[in-house]
Amino acid sequence: MSKQTTDLRIGMVGYAFMGAAHSQAWRTVNRVFDLPLQARMAAICGRDQGRVAEAATRLGWQEHTTDWRSLVGRDDIDLIDVCTPGDSHAEIAIAALAAGKHVLCEKPLANTIDEARAMAAAAARAEAEGVRSVCGFNYRRVPAVALMRRLVADGRIGEIRHVRAVYLQDWITDPQFPLVWRLQKDKAGSGALGDIGAHIIDLTQYVTGQLITGVSGMTETFVKQRPLPAASNGLSAATGDGRTGTGAVTVDDAALFLARLDGGAIATYEATRFATGRKNGLRVEINGSLGSVVFDFERMNELEFYDATRPAAEQGFARILVTEPEHPYMSGWWPPGHLIGYEHSFTHQARDLIEAIATGQAVAPSFADALQVQLVLDAVERSAGLGSTWSEVEPALTEIAA
Amino acid sequence: MSKQTTDLRIGMVGYAFMGAAHSQAWRTVNRVFDLPLQARMAAICGRDQGRVAEAATRLGWQEHTTDWRSLVGRDDIDLIDVCTPGDSHAEIAIAALAAGKHVLCEKPLANTIDEARAMAAAAARAEAEGVRSVCGFNYRRVPAVALMRRLVADGRIGEIRHVRAVYLQDWITDPQFPLVWRLQKDKAGSGALGDIGAHIIDLTQYVTGQLITGVSGMTETFVKQRPLPAASNGLSAATGDGRTGTGAVTVDDAALFLARLDGGAIATYEATRFATGRKNGLRVEINGSLGSVVFDFERMNELEFYDATRPAAEQGFARILVTEPEHPYMSGWWPPGHLIGYEHSFTHQARDLIEAIATGQAVAPSFADALQVQLVLDAVERSAGLGSTWSEVEPALTEIAA
Amino acid sequence: MSKQTTDLRIGMVGYAFMGAAHSQAWRTVNRVFDLPLQARMAAICGRDQGRVAEAATRLGWQEHTTDWRSLVGRDDIDLIDVCTPGDSHAEIAIAALAAGKHVLCEKPLANTIDEARAMAAAAARAEAEGVRSVCGFNYRRVPAVALMRRLVADGRIGEIRHVRAVYLQDWITDPQFPLVWRLQKDKAGSGALGDIGAHIIDLTQYVTGQLITGVSGMTETFVKQRPLPAASNGLSAATGDGRTGTGAVTVDDAALFLARLDGGAIATYEATRFATGRKNGLRVEINGSLGSVVFDFERMNELEFYDATRPAAEQGFARILVTEPEHPYMSGWWPPGHLIGYEHSFTHQARDLIEAIATGQAVAPSFADALQVQLVLDAVERSAGLGSTWSEVEPALTEIAA
Amino acid sequence: MSKQTTDLRIGMVGYAFMGAAHSQAWRTVNRVFDLPLQARMAAICGRDQGRVAEAATRLGWQEHTTDWRSLVGRDDIDLIDVCTPGDSHAEIAIAALAAGKHVLCEKPLANTIDEARAMAAAAARAEAEGVRSVCGFNYRRVPAVALMRRLVADGRIGEIRHVRAVYLQDWITDPQFPLVWRLQKDKAGSGALGDIGAHIIDLTQYVTGQLITGVSGMTETFVKQRPLPAASNGLSAATGDGRTGTGAVTVDDAALFLARLDGGAIATYEATRFATGRKNGLRVEINGSLGSVVFDFERMNELEFYDATRPAAEQGFARILVTEPEHPYMSGWWPPGHLIGYEHSFTHQARDLIEAIATGQAVAPSFADALQVQLVLDAVERSAGLGSTWSEVEPALTEIAA
Repeated sequence: MSKQTTDLRIGMVGYAFMGAAHSQAWRTVNRVFDLPLQARMAAICGRDQGRVAEAATRLGWQEHTTDWRSLVGRDDIDLIDVCTPGDSHAEIAIAALAAGKHVLCEKPLANTIDEARAMAAAAARAEAEGVRSVCGFNYRRVPAVALMRRLVADGRIGEIRHVRAVYLQDWITDPQFPLVWRLQKDKAGSGALGDIGAHIIDLTQYVTGQLITGVSGMTETFVKQRPLPAASNGLSAATGDGRTGTGAVTVDDAALFLARLDGGAIATYEATRFATGRKNGLRVEINGSLGSVVFDFERMNELEFYDATRPAAEQGFARILVTEPEHPYMSGWWPPGHLIGYEHSFTHQARDLIEAIATGQAVAPSFADALQVQLVLDAVERSAGLGSTWSEVEPALTEIAA
Repeated sequence: MSKQTTDLRIGMVGYAFMGAAHSQAWRTVNRVFDLPLQARMAAICGRDQGRVAEAATRLGWQEHTTDWRSLVGRDDIDLIDVCTPGDSHAEIAIAALAAGKHVLCEKPLANTIDEARAMAAAAARAEAEGVRSVCGFNYRRVPAVALMRRLVADGRIGEIRHVRAVYLQDWITDPQFPLVWRLQKDKAGSGALGDIGAHIIDLTQYVTGQLITGVSGMTETFVKQRPLPAASNGLSAATGDGRTGTGAVTVDDAALFLARLDGGAIATYEATRFATGRKNGLRVEINGSLGSVVFDFERMNELEFYDATRPAAEQGFARILVTEPEHPYMSGWWPPGHLIGYEHSFTHQARDLIEAIATGQAVAPSFADALQVQLVLDAVERSAGLGSTWSEVEPALTEIAA
Repeated sequence: MSKQTTDLRIGMVGYAFMGAAHSQAWRTVNRVFDLPLQARMAAICGRDQGRVAEAATRLGWQEHTTDWRSLVGRDDIDLIDVCTPGDSHAEIAIAALAAGKHVLCEKPLANTIDEARAMAAAAARAEAEGVRSVCGFNYRRVPAVALMRRLVADGRIGEIRHVRAVYLQDWITDPQFPLVWRLQKDKAGSGALGDIGAHIIDLTQYVTGQLITGVSGMTETFVKQRPLPAASNGLSAATGDGRTGTGAVTVDDAALFLARLDGGAIATYEATRFATGRKNGLRVEINGSLGSVVFDFERMNELEFYDATRPAAEQGFARILVTEPEHPYMSGWWPPGHLIGYEHSFTHQARDLIEAIATGQAVAPSFADALQVQLVLDAVERSAGLGSTWSEVEPALTEIAA
Repeated sequence: MSKQTTDLRIGMVGYAFMGAAHSQAWRTVNRVFDLPLQARMAAICGRDQGRVAEAATRLGWQEHTTDWRSLVGRDDIDLIDVCTPGDSHAEIAIAALAAGKHVLCEKPLANTIDEARAMAAAAARAEAEGVRSVCGFNYRRVPAVALMRRLVADGRIGEIRHVRAVYLQDWITDPQFPLVWRLQKDKAGSGALGDIGAHIIDLTQYVTGQLITGVSGMTETFVKQRPLPAASNGLSAATGDGRTGTGAVTVDDAALFLARLDGGAIATYEATRFATGRKNGLRVEINGSLGSVVFDFERMNELEFYDATRPAAEQGFARILVTEPEHPYMSGWWPPGHLIGYEHSFTHQARDLIEAIATGQAVAPSFADALQVQLVLDAVERSAGLGSTWSEVEPALTEIAA
């Protein structure tokens, strides 16, 4: 590591789950990878003065503020990391890009298509000025997923026939689980579809190199009324629906859709928060004319690969333990067989972004890529509203880049 | 085993894959289970004199014939086992029922809805006369599936939310695989949908006790032209489509559909012959409010069961090795841990049918149940033809019986 | 199947667990495989007139008798199948060989080394007269095991370094399980060591092609007193040890040993009836310089194969579903992905024996091979009696044949 | 996190593999857990001035030095973290304890029994003065292992019968892999036995709460000559054995042993660097009278638990995904289903040590515990040298503490 390393000064907005994960990534990335820029955790921003101060101490940021606009305006900040809920992404990210800051924005890119389009346009303008932007579909940076991508891109499974993708969770199966903001449409935009369905859309398009062109969708809300969080605090249920203490769930609990991809593959997708026993069950299987690949996030250090060009008596799904130095991202970590975890995908994301900034190259997934994912979500919702009738995905004028 | 055992004299029509599997069942069933009737492999029937004679010797039938009508008319035959292709099921089965013979008919029940309706009506009439009939959805008789059914029926997974069913094979991924009769609509009726999709429809309806009410479907034929089998024999391609030596594939290679069940569950189904590496990948996962069950035929002696009522720190998918005497059908076989195989499901089917005949009780799945499965298939095809628009399943006037 | 098929007339002695398994094999073998001889289930022999008559009916034998000597002496019997407990093997098998009958003898070959030596000598004499003999180590005939053997013999895992073999059961973990004859040394010879340890000794020597030359052993009896079976019947405990109603367990519950093989491999072996949750957990892993193979009987249709000559990023344990026509024994059964079960190994054993008889060739494992397994068991017991001190295996003057 | 937090100033000696892992732990521990002391990465020490300076920058230490004695003597250092090779552990750790510093010492505790005894005595003296010490058997802090310990301690598997432990690696299977210092006895003490065998000894004693009392051992060196590392650099082979460019491997490649534990369990252990395909295959299975537990580090976020008190038809090995807030160490991390990795065990070790220091309580494994592990290793080597003859483990005057 040379002495000439230049700092990359980070300003982060938001400090909840994603804020903690991103902080761990910025703190770790230069300890593991030899990079041309040194990440500095300069300042963190949040709405509540007390809580952001506590977060700064806990997560290790040098300064804290409650004013994201001043953060974006500072000359000594190089990159804005947007970890807020989706409804503020557009405003913050566009302002940051306009101020010449590189931007890492969590998914979903925005809560509306219009906002997402504006962000993609702003990112394209900034890109021309050498300002980088990327959307936080971190699962691309799981080494097993990157290896899956590489095998597919190298033609090892041939022509792709089938995509089979599910994202299964179970954290709201209890009907007494309260009506948190993620279950309210005005705050969350959508339910399982946008929250976790977006991940499998991005991941499968990334791995296959194909874009979804049309869908037939269906959504369901199994538990339609839930206790208000306020109610459990003993407060009156001001926002309830008339019945004391409960409110309406206004987003989907589960979303299912069939799809066609532009390279000829057909696909099934399912996102749900009601798959009892499945905690973070992001699973993807892709079948091609020469082989298949299978990934399951609950065993995220493994990739299964079936190579149909092997001798007939020896064919089988090989469980590849993706911890070898020959595997993507792994040379920086531990010896073979020593596993990595969830947050490492964020460290890899930070690494790729730092390298892109240093070398002046684009980094995927771009805001345009993220806009395209939301156009798929939009098509699913339209189809579900029309009795599952086939719905074309509106063009996003984007191509998937590796 | 008492001396008073009465013979049950079987006449089987057909001698290919299913004929061999059924023969093994009839030969074995009284060796393993203590039953009130003794199966006798009386006569086998096929169109080709030489081949049916050879089959009789190889499979162990006492007599053989090429005339199914004479077989059905014999006084010394008690049961007709229909193992022919679907286009002859209706004629044979209805004649046999009319002659007062019990009937075991392979799935699909028939190639058309009209035929299936006629068969269901004939079976209902015969049932009133004490004549039993059953359709050969043998996977119900895999012990792990029967255990799954029992756990669900006992309320162990609570209210059912999700059904996730696939039947994955890969035997025609090679585009040079010839245009066998199963790939021609006039002979096979449909492709993966009717051949293997029918199994997962029946199995999931059986296990959940819920019927599919509507679907959104999609089908695909990946390889649209294949070499004619004749071509590979050096013969002229008499039935080709103009281009020498190839013919059009007229059935689906893969079928995907979303569904709703009448108890409130939502579901995804997929049947395909293009899932490279999956040989007989019949997999079903069912998520309920209190637990989940998972079955994979490629590990047919196992059932996974997640019990969400267990202490939080101990919850997990338990891999039950379904070989204990407490498990369905298993007390007749080997000690715990000694696995059984595919053909045992047919032996269990024979056992249940023999017991039903001896006790004068109905046995599921009835022809009416099998008709209902075909009405689901019909709805899938209609939906696929209408841009995946939601299609209701026509009522079959049936209920699923255990 | 040609008309000229000659019958192979079987006389079986014994009708319990092994009798049932062997009967299923003889009944099935000609239905699945195209063989030059037709097995005929001529006569079954047992000590109890009523029970052997019942067994003949249930298992499908034409005749029954209580006199094994007369059975052995009959001109119309070609093969004697010995399924009795070990203490009568030598007398019956030697008499049968002397009478010119082919002999299939269950394992263990005998209860004493002297008897085993006499049997091996008798078999060698008979072999010279064209009379075949084989010991029933049926696990060799599981297709996945045979495939494992083929891969190793073909050099696919290179020079063998490690053998890791366990045979885990749990049927006597309950201290109230009664003192059955298998737990008494005078009747059973030994406990887990001889009953199931013998299987993993034979299997690993077969697969590696190496013989065990020395061992360091240890045995344990966890539950030293058990209720007498009589006690639970309310009878007086005539054979107890003074305390009413219980008796001493005089065999090992578990046996562990380290070993060296003559090709340079080192090994660990464990056989136990106290591995709670393991029902028939026969597991073998073999590591070589170029790869590894892993077999687990509880998933007997699978073989794991690690090929270290593959590209580094693609190496992994491939789960081979051993149901392809290219796999040993499988072309006679069902399509790929349709599993077989425990009893099929006996059908394959019957096939190999029939072919050996028809072609006049030897079939493994010979009685000499089985004697060598018992010499290994003997060395383990000697070592365990001497504080685990290294004990050489006495030479058996045998070589392992495929 | 209160303002009153006191700093815990760390001085680390060593900066290789373990140095990197420990650094990540110290950097992370206060970000994840709410602790009474704040770890500060004060200074790092190494022999080479340039390399330790580079390590300080890369790993994030405030200062660096080449003089461990001065580091130990500083007033502003509270804890010495010993990550050097084993031959310097005793000198550094004893000096640090004498200077009143808490000590975290990597395993093996020392290269000789005498050194280990001296360290245990020094630790006991320091403990009386309120100075804490712990040996770095980090696998105890994998949440699944801690859960396994808890289940066993709670009596959930009953009386322990069997321990089955292997630690399988494959990094030197290639005979051309060079003669690194780990393969030379004068530097490494022993081979696989001390390096990885020590881990499974500690882990199984910790989980069972039983100590090994005697062993029968065997060791093997498969590749006895290897290229000198110098040779591959083109340098002359100064330390070779006469043949140019190669040297003798003087440690074991693999070690196998049988054992008895003081609570009545019997065990097999195997440690090897020649298990092709196994990368970090630390696997432990423990069978008790009421159940079993199974752990495999290559799936370190999972624990298998068999509960034999469940209804017979539902018993099975439950795959517990150890990522729930109810699981040890996990409440500080991510939501359920979001995995952790290898280095997290070191973060948990740091947490436990910080809490012990703050609360004035002892923390396991103590140096006395670590001494006892080495006495087991010593017994294995003695036995292996005496033809596997049973060897008692010398008493360490220690008890295992949780």
